[in-house]
Amino acid sequence: MTTQKGTLGTNTITQIGLLVHDIEAVSQAYADFFGLEKPEWFWTDTADQAQTEFNGQSSEARAKLAFFDMGSLQLELIEPDRHPSTWREHLDAHGEGVHHIALIIEGMKEKVTLMEGKGMKQVQKGEYTGGRYAYMDTFQELKVMLELLENDPS
Amino acid sequence: MTTQKGTLGTNTITQIGLLVHDIEAVSQAYADFFGLEKPEWFWTDTADQAQTEFNGQSSEARAKLAFFDMGSLQLELIEPDRHPSTWREHLDAHGEGVHHIALIIEGMKEKVTLMEGKGMKQVQKGEYTGGRYAYMDTFQELKVMLELLENDPS
Repeated sequence: MTTQKGTLGTNTITQIGLLVHDIEAVSQAYADFFGLEKPEWFWTDTADQAQTEFNGQSSEARAKLAFFDMGSLQLELIEPDRHPSTWREHLDAHGEGVHHIALIIEGMKEKVTLMEGKGMKQVQKGEYTGGRYAYMDTFQELKVMLELLENDPS
Repeated sequence: MTTQKGTLGTNTITQIGLLVHDIEAVSQAYADFFGLEKPEWFWTDTADQAQTEFNGQSSEARAKLAFFDMGSLQLELIEPDRHPSTWREHLDAHGEGVHHIALIIEGMKEKVTLMEGKGMKQVQKGEYTGGRYAYMDTFQELKVMLELLENDPS
């Protein structure tokens, strides 16, 4: 499935992330519209586990997340709390809507370094159970933010 | 692959559409970043063929389009001309970035009627070789615009 070329070694988009003000209401709207079960939202991990860094500073930021399977990719709804994060910043600046598209990669450090060498800054990073993420500022070049996801070997 | 439930009879996202000011530059950036061949962009059909309607009025609007295969879905770059369209309106109002996600459906008229019954207005429609599209205003409910694509039986 994964092509071994390009900066990331893959071009498979696995997720679209949308910022919302009310995850309960928007989850219900997706469930109703697409005839799907409404998933339970959950909080991202607390700061001690998530080790979230936003613009190089550690942050207490958390978000409520809900996921829908939309064919071959996930649609992620994100309702951030008030602490500093790319989620809160983007929601305050641009309102609700698409925040990022995500790709599953291998070798997070190497990929982040490669992208930073191209002038694409790491905006936020954190850990989740079974892996880690990095949001990279690719807007100028690609007109959308990329999220890199690295899952631990199971 | 297609689930036969919900409003559209499918929940498979097949395309993400991004508005850009310079399709040549952004196509090159995608090609370089993902190690892909740069696709040739092309103009949408002229008004007599496309029969474009925007907000219920016929429009001369056209756009340059370029497509990238990103795993299981297409990434579409859209550089609109100056005539009235959802593309031009969105680009002027919100700048570059994601404009819509698309799903392939069957029974365009019926699906559009069903959605309009839910208060989701048809914003723009048109024909292309082998099919037709409709942009539906789902932003309030789903926080992103949906495009319905109907391809003729081949």
